[in-house]
Formats: sequence, structure tokens, C-alpha cells
Amino acid sequence: MLFSRTTIPVDLGLGVTAPRGFRASGIAAGIKPDRKDLAVVINDGPDVVSAEVLTQNRVFAAPIRWMKETAGTARKAVILNSGGANASTGEKGYQDTVKTAQVVAAKLGTELESVAVCSTGMIGERLPMERLIPGAELAITKLSDDGGADAAHAIMTTDTRAKQAGIAGEYTIGSMAKGAGMLAPGMATMLCVVTTDAVLTEAEARHALELATTYSFNRIDSDGAMSTNDTVILMASGASGVTPKDFPRDLTAVMQSLARQLIGDAEGASHDVLIRVLGASSENAGLAVARAVSRSNLLKAAIFGNDPNWGRVIAQAGTVPAEVAPFDPDKIDVWFNGIHVCRAGGVGEDRSRVDLAANRDVTIEIDLHAGTEIVELWTNDLTHDYVHENSAYSS
Amino acid sequence: MLFSRTTIPVDLGLGVTAPRGFRASGIAAGIKPDRKDLAVVINDGPDVVSAEVLTQNRVFAAPIRWMKETAGTARKAVILNSGGANASTGEKGYQDTVKTAQVVAAKLGTELESVAVCSTGMIGERLPMERLIPGAELAITKLSDDGGADAAHAIMTTDTRAKQAGIAGEYTIGSMAKGAGMLAPGMATMLCVVTTDAVLTEAEARHALELATTYSFNRIDSDGAMSTNDTVILMASGASGVTPKDFPRDLTAVMQSLARQLIGDAEGASHDVLIRVLGASSENAGLAVARAVSRSNLLKAAIFGNDPNWGRVIAQAGTVPAEVAPFDPDKIDVWFNGIHVCRAGGVGEDRSRVDLAANRDVTIEIDLHAGTEIVELWTNDLTHDYVHENSAYSS
Repeated sequence: MLFSRTTIPVDLGLGVTAPRGFRASGIAAGIKPDRKDLAVVINDGPDVVSAEVLTQNRVFAAPIRWMKETAGTARKAVILNSGGANASTGEKGYQDTVKTAQVVAAKLGTELESVAVCSTGMIGERLPMERLIPGAELAITKLSDDGGADAAHAIMTTDTRAKQAGIAGEYTIGSMAKGAGMLAPGMATMLCVVTTDAVLTEAEARHALELATTYSFNRIDSDGAMSTNDTVILMASGASGVTPKDFPRDLTAVMQSLARQLIGDAEGASHDVLIRVLGASSENAGLAVARAVSRSNLLKAAIFGNDPNWGRVIAQAGTVPAEVAPFDPDKIDVWFNGIHVCRAGGVGEDRSRVDLAANRDVTIEIDLHAGTEIVELWTNDLTHDYVHENSAYSS
Repeated sequence: MLFSRTTIPVDLGLGVTAPRGFRASGIAAGIKPDRKDLAVVINDGPDVVSAEVLTQNRVFAAPIRWMKETAGTARKAVILNSGGANASTGEKGYQDTVKTAQVVAAKLGTELESVAVCSTGMIGERLPMERLIPGAELAITKLSDDGGADAAHAIMTTDTRAKQAGIAGEYTIGSMAKGAGMLAPGMATMLCVVTTDAVLTEAEARHALELATTYSFNRIDSDGAMSTNDTVILMASGASGVTPKDFPRDLTAVMQSLARQLIGDAEGASHDVLIRVLGASSENAGLAVARAVSRSNLLKAAIFGNDPNWGRVIAQAGTVPAEVAPFDPDKIDVWFNGIHVCRAGGVGEDRSRVDLAANRDVTIEIDLHAGTEIVELWTNDLTHDYVHENSAYSS
């Protein structure tokens, strides 16, 4: 399930209302000044099947508590707001989430527990419920079968563009996501809703979502942060009548496209960096090395400076304990954009042959010569703009 | 052994030649243009006792290989160069290190294995031996009992000032260190030589150095990087004739001063940040939380922007697994410079009361309410200058 080996064509125009059986809307509730900030997505069936993956952060927001407490219920609707994470807001913040779900459930005439709630934005501030509740009511009146793009816009925070991806064929997958800052392991700071009109059992949906998350959002690591609000929801309507042959593969392709879009729009980044570890003794070993390399501020700053600093790559690989990733440091090879700059742990081809300035994308390949596993992880460089955006913006 | 509870006064004027029985020199060998780049420190006895701590990075430089292969030999002399790390230089680079030790041993008429070698600078380039060897010979002719300050200057890389610290009393401790970039766990990118005229056994020296390293260099984490060359050497001459009562305590105070100086001169930093975790269930639990918080680029950028962003503190604490650091996220308290900005996991005092712009030093206290352990860790903020220095300088 490597990013580089996904050959299924993905259509970035297919949002959450592309599959049959879904309506959505995105409106300006006034949570943020002068822009869309509230989205609703509903599954009109005939099936109501869903699966979800939540942040692994132990410090989680009120909507995550709601999702945990109502876990196991198939989600009929999702309401998502930007402009406030509703995190560290205590019992009152939690009651705001419950109230939001109640309003949606009442309007749609559905069970309370079937309403998923997602929030993103600042930590430590209550949501403006006097604007959110009328907004939720308005959003429900605006639901339509071409509202996907509006919804995708309403969940943006520091994103510079809306993110959608889908596949259309015998059955259709559509999706939307927001990311920007705090893209991290065990999930990016992100909200993602994937819809499909495929016929899926609950177990199939859960299995596919877990697999696809592992090889998409859990293979990007922009700045090592893990948010309090991360949520990925998959909803299946069955409206196509088609039972897919390889749904996990298709879902992974869609979610890899979203993950790639998140990295491509990460706060302040000027390079997207694909770290490919080859010759790892196991997937975990390769991932540990890739993550260690992706966390090096020294390397990330060098890439910003268009410097193929392979010394910082192998120094970082060397911080991974031998019991986690066995390899012989004297055998490591490193390539920057295909130029073999480090050969057997020492100097290889002339690093001046590497031109990092030419493209936004950079590929760093590290061959550990310790096995046959290959792992890919996307990260970003560390730039002045990253420092600026995150020193000026309170989130 | 908390930084904040060390009450032993340390004198920053006491270098490696402050204790009796030591000579040193620092000269310009031409490895770097127009500045001192080579230092030698020798122990004239009567005792020749030493201990050392080396980088835990599996990718290590030629001089580290030398130190490992000759481990167990008491060090009579140390030769240190800046201007080149002699890392990733293969067997030829290793032979350069051996040659360097040979020249020193021959000149001093001492055993080859008693010569310690340290290098710092760029990775992946051979040292200019045609300049280093004559330089080493020159440095030995220049050895004097007040050469400590010259030696401290010769080992600087991107350091903006030389670092020394010592204690004088019945017996004396002196030291020098260099740091600047890559300050990290399991040691900073640093070279450090500590000398003393105390009477110590080899076991006492080793025990004291391990303890002091744990509570000094292993309690600073500037950018999460761990270098290929880190070396701390303690040498004892016994020339005072005094057997100390509590040498580990005194050594820790000296090395904490050096560690604090390294953080205060870290590349591009504008704030030094003391992270104090209180109420931890164990030292490891507290350290895991402190390290997680110290690694948050989001938090570090916020501090650069003088923003007391406690949401980023608790979000980062929440990434530590419960089995490593048990605590209840709804009980966490956070203070920035004594202002109780987060109370019981939620909003506390008004964050606008915190003025981070007033001082370089920032104190973040995190009470986990899960036990009685206290852990302190120093880190830095993430600044434009950090990005600039590390994107422009190849090391």
C-alpha cells in the first residue's frame, strides 16, 4: 500500500455528495467572520453503515468524548464546525456538543446517537452556541445532493484550499478533509468524511477504514503533533447496489490522495518530502526509521535551504534503537531525488548534483540493507513561514 | 538533582587548567580559516584517572569508534578539533583519528590508548591531516597551566561564546564544553572535558560522571537531535590530595551550569524554556511528558511568538501513552511563568497575564497529579534564526 505504487486514478472533483444517497451543505453560521464554518453530511440510505477512527491523544476534545460515548452506533449524519475545537472546555463544552447533536437529530428525526459531531480550531474556548445552533438548523434546510464542495469549504481552518477525492465506477467514493497544521502520526490534525454508495457490512467498513488510515493519514507526519480532535468517518449508503470487489484498495487510494493533499497544503511548507525506507527488517523497523528522519528539525531546515544534507539523515537513523530497527550503519545508502549521495555509510555521489530547488517534491530514499520491507512516509520541510504561522496563530 | 535546586555556586571562570595537575592549549591549526580550531588537555598527575560518556547514536564518528575500541584505558590526554566531525568518512577517516592519537602519544611519550580524540563540525568530509598533524605538534609545545580558556575557544563551532564552569574549594573542578546545534537527549551535540584535582578511584569517577550526565546534558533537549560525536570526558589528577565528600553533587552542579550555558547559546533561540513536570508517578513518566512537550514545534513556535499556548502543552502531554505516564487529562494544571493558565485540564487564569516578552527565560510547569516525582528539562523556542542557521549551514 505504498503511495508510490497506487495506480488507481482518483478524481479530486468527487466530494461527499458524489456517491448516491448523500446530501450535504456548508454555510456561514457566524462562528468565524465572513466565511463558511459549518457543514452537515447525511446518509439517506438505503443502508446506514459507518466506521470511524479517532485521535489517539489522551487529551481529547468534547466531540471526541461524544464519539467515544456513542461508539458502535451507525452514523446517519455528521455535523462539523471550524472556528473552535471545543477542547479543554470541560463539562459545559461537552454539553455544547450534546446539544448540537440533539438539534441535528431532532431536525432530521433520527436517533441522537446516530449524529457524529466534529470540531476544529482553537483549544480552550467555548463555542458560540447562540450562533452555532441556528447555523445547524439553517445547514439542515440547505442540504442538497450537490452540497459536497460547500461542506469541504466550511471545514477549512488554515487550509488554503478545500480537499476532496473520489473514485467513480460501478460504485462511487467521495470525500472531504481539512488539515493544514499539526499533521502527525497516529493521525494528522484533521477531519475527514468519506462517503460511498457501495454495499458494505459494518465489519467491512471498519476493516477498510482501519487499513486505509494506516497507509494514508498514518503515513504523513508534518510536524510530529497529534491533535485533540482528529476524526475520520466513513459512511456507506448501499445506494449503488454494488458489493465491491476490493473496497479497501479503492478507499486507500482515495485517502492517500487526501493525505497527499494535506501535506501539499501544510502550514508554511515549501517542500513536500517523501521518505522511502527500503531494505527494512520489518514494517515497524522501516516506519521507526522513517519517523525518526521525518522528525529532524535540522534535516527539515536543510531541505528548506535546498541542501541535500545526508549526514543529518543517517545521524537521525542512528537514533533508532537496534532492537527496534536492526541495521548496520556502515551499509546505509541514501539517495536524494535519485542521486546516490551516501554510499555504505560514507560519501557517495557529489551532493551538488542534487537540485532541490527545482521542485516542491523531494524524495529521500534510505536503504538499510537489513531486509525486504519498504515503508513510505510524507513530511514537509521546516520554513520561516511555519515558524511565523505558528507563532502568530493561537490554536 | 533538579536544576532549580542546585545551590552550589559555580564559577564560570574556571576552565580545564583551574585544577592542579593539568595543562592545556588551544591553537589555530588552519582546519578553519583564521581562528583557533585545535585543543589539547593533559593530565600531569600524580593520578591518571578518567571516565567518559559517549553518544548513544548508532551512527557514530571515527573518534567515537576510537574511544570505544580503547575504552577502559585511563586517559592521559585529550585532543579535540573543530572544523570537521570526521563522521561518515569510513576506514580512512578512522585511520586519521588513529594517526592523530599516535602523534600526541609520541610527543608526550605516553601510551597510544591513553589519548582521547574528539572532533566536531561537518559530517562526511575528511579532516585536513596535512594541517591537523603539524597543529597537534604545535599545540603540545604550547601546553600551559593557564591554557584552559584557549582550549575552550578552540572547540567552538557555531557557539557564540566559550563555555567554562568550575568549583574551587578544598579541591577544584574545571571544565569546558561546546554545543550550539543538535542539543538533544541521550546527549547534546557537544564535547565536554571536565578536570579535577580531587582524589578519585576509577569507579568513583565513572559513577559521578554517569549521574551528573543524567541530570545535566541529558536534561536539555534543544531540537531533538542526537549527534554522531558527543563526548564527555572526566579526568582526575589527585593533585589536591583531597578525597571529596560529595563529588557527584559538585560535578552535577558544574555540568548543569555547562548544560544551561549550552541552552543559552543554542542556535537561533530567543527563549530558554524550563519545563518542570510535577506530580509524576515516576521519574520516567515525568521525563516522557517533559520530552514530549519539549519536542512540540507548535509550542516552540508559539513561545517564539510570546504566546503562552497551554493548549499545545496539554495536547502534547496527551500523546504520551498511559502505560508510560499514567495521569488523568482532566486534572492537569499548567503554569506559564507562575500564571495558572490551565486548571484541571481547562481554562484557568487569563493568559494575557503572562508576559513572555519580558525575559529570555520561560518556565512552564505541568502538574500531572499522579504522584510525587518532579522532573526538569531545558529546551529552546523555535525561531526564524534557527531555520535560517540550519538551512544555510551544512553540518
